[in-house]
Formats: sequence, structure tokens, C-alpha cells
Amino acid sequence: MSRIVQKYGGTSVGDVERIKNVALRIKAFREEGHELVVVVSARSGVTNELIARAQAVCANPSEREMDQLLAIGEQETIALTAMALHGVGVDAVSYTGAQAGIFTDTVHTKAKIKTINAQPLEKDLKAGRVIIVAGFQGINEDGQITTLGRGGSDLTAIALAAALKADKCEIYTDVDGVYTADPRVVKTARKLDEISYDEMLELASSGSKVMQSRSVEFAAKYGVVFEVRSSFNHNPGTIVKQEVAYMEKVAVRGVAVDKDQAKVVVSNLPDQPGTAAKVFRALADASIIVDMIVQNVGHAGVANLTFTVPLTDTAKAKKSLEPVLAKLGGGQVAVSEGIAKLSVVGVGMKTHSGVAATLFQALADAGVNIEMISTSEIKISVIIDKARADEAARVAHAAFGLG
Amino acid sequence: MSRIVQKYGGTSVGDVERIKNVALRIKAFREEGHELVVVVSARSGVTNELIARAQAVCANPSEREMDQLLAIGEQETIALTAMALHGVGVDAVSYTGAQAGIFTDTVHTKAKIKTINAQPLEKDLKAGRVIIVAGFQGINEDGQITTLGRGGSDLTAIALAAALKADKCEIYTDVDGVYTADPRVVKTARKLDEISYDEMLELASSGSKVMQSRSVEFAAKYGVVFEVRSSFNHNPGTIVKQEVAYMEKVAVRGVAVDKDQAKVVVSNLPDQPGTAAKVFRALADASIIVDMIVQNVGHAGVANLTFTVPLTDTAKAKKSLEPVLAKLGGGQVAVSEGIAKLSVVGVGMKTHSGVAATLFQALADAGVNIEMISTSEIKISVIIDKARADEAARVAHAAFGLG
Repeated sequence: MSRIVQKYGGTSVGDVERIKNVALRIKAFREEGHELVVVVSARSGVTNELIARAQAVCANPSEREMDQLLAIGEQETIALTAMALHGVGVDAVSYTGAQAGIFTDTVHTKAKIKTINAQPLEKDLKAGRVIIVAGFQGINEDGQITTLGRGGSDLTAIALAAALKADKCEIYTDVDGVYTADPRVVKTARKLDEISYDEMLELASSGSKVMQSRSVEFAAKYGVVFEVRSSFNHNPGTIVKQEVAYMEKVAVRGVAVDKDQAKVVVSNLPDQPGTAAKVFRALADASIIVDMIVQNVGHAGVANLTFTVPLTDTAKAKKSLEPVLAKLGGGQVAVSEGIAKLSVVGVGMKTHSGVAATLFQALADAGVNIEMISTSEIKISVIIDKARADEAARVAHAAFGLG
Repeated sequence: MSRIVQKYGGTSVGDVERIKNVALRIKAFREEGHELVVVVSARSGVTNELIARAQAVCANPSEREMDQLLAIGEQETIALTAMALHGVGVDAVSYTGAQAGIFTDTVHTKAKIKTINAQPLEKDLKAGRVIIVAGFQGINEDGQITTLGRGGSDLTAIALAAALKADKCEIYTDVDGVYTADPRVVKTARKLDEISYDEMLELASSGSKVMQSRSVEFAAKYGVVFEVRSSFNHNPGTIVKQEVAYMEKVAVRGVAVDKDQAKVVVSNLPDQPGTAAKVFRALADASIIVDMIVQNVGHAGVANLTFTVPLTDTAKAKKSLEPVLAKLGGGQVAVSEGIAKLSVVGVGMKTHSGVAATLFQALADAGVNIEMISTSEIKISVIIDKARADEAARVAHAAFGLG
């Protein structure tokens, strides 16, 4: 008997038929004698419907009320999933984030999990019940409902796996696992059996849609081994863990493209100590996640800062920079939304030379212009024209022999 | 400056346009300087949608999960209403039942309010915020979400008015107030300016759809004066309170028809002490509200019990009676759904004679057969053929000169 935490995403529980199907899958696991804690997302589409309704009543809805609103998406799914389990004779009980003791900080719409009080869940597990927990949500110390932001349901599952000392954590989604590249774009992409946290993290932060970085970071921090697999078949998925066999033999493990970033150029800034700090402090205070950063010193004592932010945050970024530029006494902000980030990722990069050169040559041969470059120990990212991004992914995938 | 509790029902907040309209009404009250606590229901139709989805995943959904599910209807409306208020520049904050400190017993789908901890609301009221509270829901001691059953949002409003010592409680609905009869059925029906708790209670229990009995009972118990009025116009409504001017001058204040009852006949029961107690204990244990009861002793030591239950509970009633009859060693259950209850109500009945005779004569003249009769101090009810109910209401309304 193992203790297993499973997470089913929005497409897996997209309608009543799919919820019934998930219930049958859970029943099969239960009949193997496992203790099961199941995290579910909102039905796919529901969150967007709620956001649309919010925007119809108020142009700029308060984040506190937005959380109060969005939390109902998962609350619907937990109740329906528990009922569907009852329908097939499985004892089950649903928990909202608050009921599951998931305490967060007070940052609405992007809250961080602080602690989990798993006592009530332990009691129901002992009683032989399958526990269904609402993903994506928690409660803060003031009793206000918070949501965890994008990918929040994965985070709920991994945090629960850590808190409950689960033997396994399975993230069920609509893809079979982690691929060397997006199979819709690169036909020769292969599914990986295993991947390290670091590689997964770099892939996630590079636009691989499988999981958000923070869930992987959380898993790495608490040593939660998890498997990404499909809820629509029974194929084995990709196991994500600390150490991967033959890790250093392969220089590049995958190629990822992120089309959801925008490039922000802040030009003609007074070139004085503390300028960059003020700019990025303002963005941090607005909870905007800045990705790549490049600074060039320009002519005549002015500096240019270039960085990327999520496409959805460009308006917020511009607005938060206005008072900073006014105080600094200079500078202009220009946003370019027609860009994409291409990244190649691999732990083996640490011990292989020439990875950057191979990538740049491959892109040059294909006539793809590089606008920005950023590297980490196990990743090289370039900003290129969004229109050329898919082609560039295929070229890079082939250049590193990933097919 | 007054402290006002308002309640807006499902049709008043039926879509985003109506929610925005309610926000404008609230804004106008706020600008008069009042402290406002606003209780809202789920958008009309939402609760039925959720029930349909529940039944699609499970033939007989658990009541605990049903509450978990249904509570999201009001949670959506509170968030949207608070946002709509922000959109028109009014400071507002939403509260779920649990957040508003509405503690109930543990009877799912029909919970009773035990206590309200209004401290958090007082704080926000002092800060000048309009408070939006989810009607129909609460939380029990185990942290489980409960719902209050039909008419639960009215109950939330009246209980909050009592707990917060509000100066006024206004129940906004889709009708202008309480009428002498249903205006859709009886064209000459008039709106009443005032009505006593007792009369309102008898009207409510007699099928007048304006409000459920329990809310009126709660108001009577705690002396909460409330007004029933429309959210679609600015007409004054009907004030419900203890003492009504000239109360005893009018024998009959209104006529009500209830088509949502079924008649249950339990026949050939062994005529021994305790039989009726066993029958009604079984129904009470199944949380079925029994309305009219008539017992006839039959021939040869067997008894017949006739009573009415809500139409929605007929299957449950039959099921809960089976083991009782088995234990008693006899008896058959027959259900008749084609009936209606017609009631005439008035405090003045206490001091006027001949009310029953007038009613029976009027029905006899119209050829309407009476199947059961039940009377209280201020009400006379008869069970008649459902198909003749509207006609009977018009006849009774005219007979007592209510037009």
C-alpha cells in the first residue's frame, strides 16, 4: 500500500463525462489498496468564464474579490468528483483549500503556501476515504480566500505530497509527459523517461507548458519525486527527480519556446548607481516576474535596460515604471510584443563545450536573428522574432540530435 | 444614519447587467449615509444548473457534497456584486457565510443557524465599507459548509439584521410586496401596506411564494421588522411586524394557494397507541416537513392517517415509511400529487365568526370539492383538486371582499 497524491487538470475534469472517467481511474487505484489524495482543477474554461463575468461588472476587479470568485471553479469540481466517486461506490470526501488547511500569505491572485495543516486529511485517510482537494486555492491568516496563480493546482499537489509524506505524486494532464520539444511543432520530438528538477525547471521557465516553475522549485526544495502523465491513457509518463541516470552524457535534453513574453526596453536612463535597482524594485513591488535582463551602457551618460516580462503584465509594467522614470528624471519605455524566447536545456551542458556556438550557428544558418542572449549553467536562451520561433525550435532540436 | 440589512434575490442579481443595477441602488443608499449589509442569492438558474450537474455524475448525491457544491452559487454573486460596487466607486467587501461567522448545526442542505459572530462585519462597517454577504450558507463546528435550504437567503438577512441590531431589514424580490392573493391568478388582488408576523407566517406556510415560514418565524422570534419590496422599481413594499394597525377589523387578510404539496394516505394501520407517533417520527428523522394531518379511525381496529408533505419529498416519505409499516405489521401508503392547499388567513379571524362557513359555502357554490380541512387560530386551509385551485382562490378572494 502506498500513499499517492494525484492531480487532475482542467481538461481531465472538463465536463461531467470526464469527471466520471476520472472517478473510474481513481476507483482502480483505490482497489489496489492505496491511500489517495486527489487534487483537481476547475473545469477547463470555467476560470476564463468567471474572469469575463468579473470584467463585465468592473473594468479593473479587485484581486481580493477575484480570488473569492475564482475559488468557486475548483470548489465545483471537488464536489462533483466526490459525488462521482460515491456513484461508483468509493467513499470520498471533498476539501476546499481552506478546509485542507492550506495556509498562504496575503498576496491575492499569486499567494504563496506558508504551511499545511494536514491533520484533518490524515483522519479521513485513516478512515479509508479518498480525499478530493481543490487545487489552486488556500486561505490566509485573516480567513480570506487566496489563489496561487498559474499552475497553482500542481503546486497544491506537490505541497500536499510533501506535507503528507506521500510515496508518489502523479500530475495527470493532457500530454503524455515531458518531451524534447513541443511535439506539435517539432515532429521528431521524443518523450523523456526521466528529467532532473533543474532541467525541468529551466524548461518550465522557458515556456514548456507542462508545468510552472514554482511547482518544480517547490518539489526540488522538498525532494518530492513526481511523475507527469496523461489522464487519457495508461502510458508511463516522465519522472521528475533530483538525479537522473546518465545525466551528463547528454549535453542538451530539450528545446522550449515561450511566446508569452514581451520585451521591454527602458532607454536613456541616467547612468548612475542604483538606477537598475529602482527599476526592478518597482516591477517587483507590482508582483511582475522579470525574466531575461540585459543592460547596455549607451552614449553620454545614459543607460539602456532591456528585459522580458509576461505578455499579460506589459500594461502593469509600463504603469509601474512611470513614477520611477519621473523620479529619475529621464528615460523612455518601449514594449515589443512580437518576440519569442527559445531555450536549450540540459544538465550535461556544464561539462560539454560548444553548446552555445552550435545553437547560434544553427540559427544563423536558418537566417534567424538573435535579439537578446541569456545563459545559465544548464540553459541558453535567445530572444528571436515570434514569427520564426517554431522553425527555430525545429532547427535547434535537429542541431543537438534530439530526434 | 441607519444601519440597514438588504437582501437581493436570484432574479435581482440574475446576470451581470442586473448585478450592476443592484450596485447602483446600493450606491444610492450608501450616499444617504447608511451603513449597509447586503445579502445576495445565487444568480437565478445557477442552483438548478449545479443540481443537474450533480445528478449527472451521481444518481443520489451526498448532502454534504451538495452543500459544498451549491455554496458556490452565492460565492459567485458576492464577488461580482462587490466588484460592481468598486466599479461605481463604492468601497465594498464580500463575505462567504463562513467568513461572516454564520455558524449552523450539522444538518446538510437544511441547516439551522445557531450563532452569528458579527465582529468581523462590525469592523468593516466602521471602516465605511458596504458588506456583501452570501445568503443561504453557513459553516458548522467541523468547518464544513452547510446550506440553509429553501428561502435560506432571506433567513441570512433576517438573522444578520438581528445579530447586527439593524434599524431596517429590506427583502428585495421580484414582487412589490405581499398581496391579498397571487395577482397573476386573482386580478383584483391588492398589495398590503402592513402585515403581522402571524399572518405572514400562515400565508408563507400556505404557499404564498413571497417568503418561507422559517425566515418569518426567525424575524418574529427576534422582533426583526422587515419590508418586502421590489428591486425593479422604487414602490414602497409591505412591512412585516408584530402589531398591525386595525388588525382585528378585517377578518381575512389574504388568500394563498400551495400547489407544491402532495397528499399521503397511510391506510389500514393497526389502531393501537403509538402508531401515529412511529409514523411521524420516521418522517421527522428523514427531515420531511409534514403539513396538514388528519386521522380517521376506520373499521375493525385499523386506522387511516392522511397528511401532506412537500411534492419534492414524496419519494423520500414513501421510503422512510416502509420499515415502519413492516414493523407495525400492516398498512399501505398511497400518494396523491394532484392536490392543492387553499388557505384564508387573518388575525381578525379570532374575533369574527362564520369565516369557515363563508369559505365552505363559496367553494360549494363553485362546485369545488373539499378533501381535507385544517384550521388554526388565524387560518383555515382546505385540500382541493389542483386543477380547480386558481378558480377557488378567486372565489374565496371575492367572498371575503378582499378586492
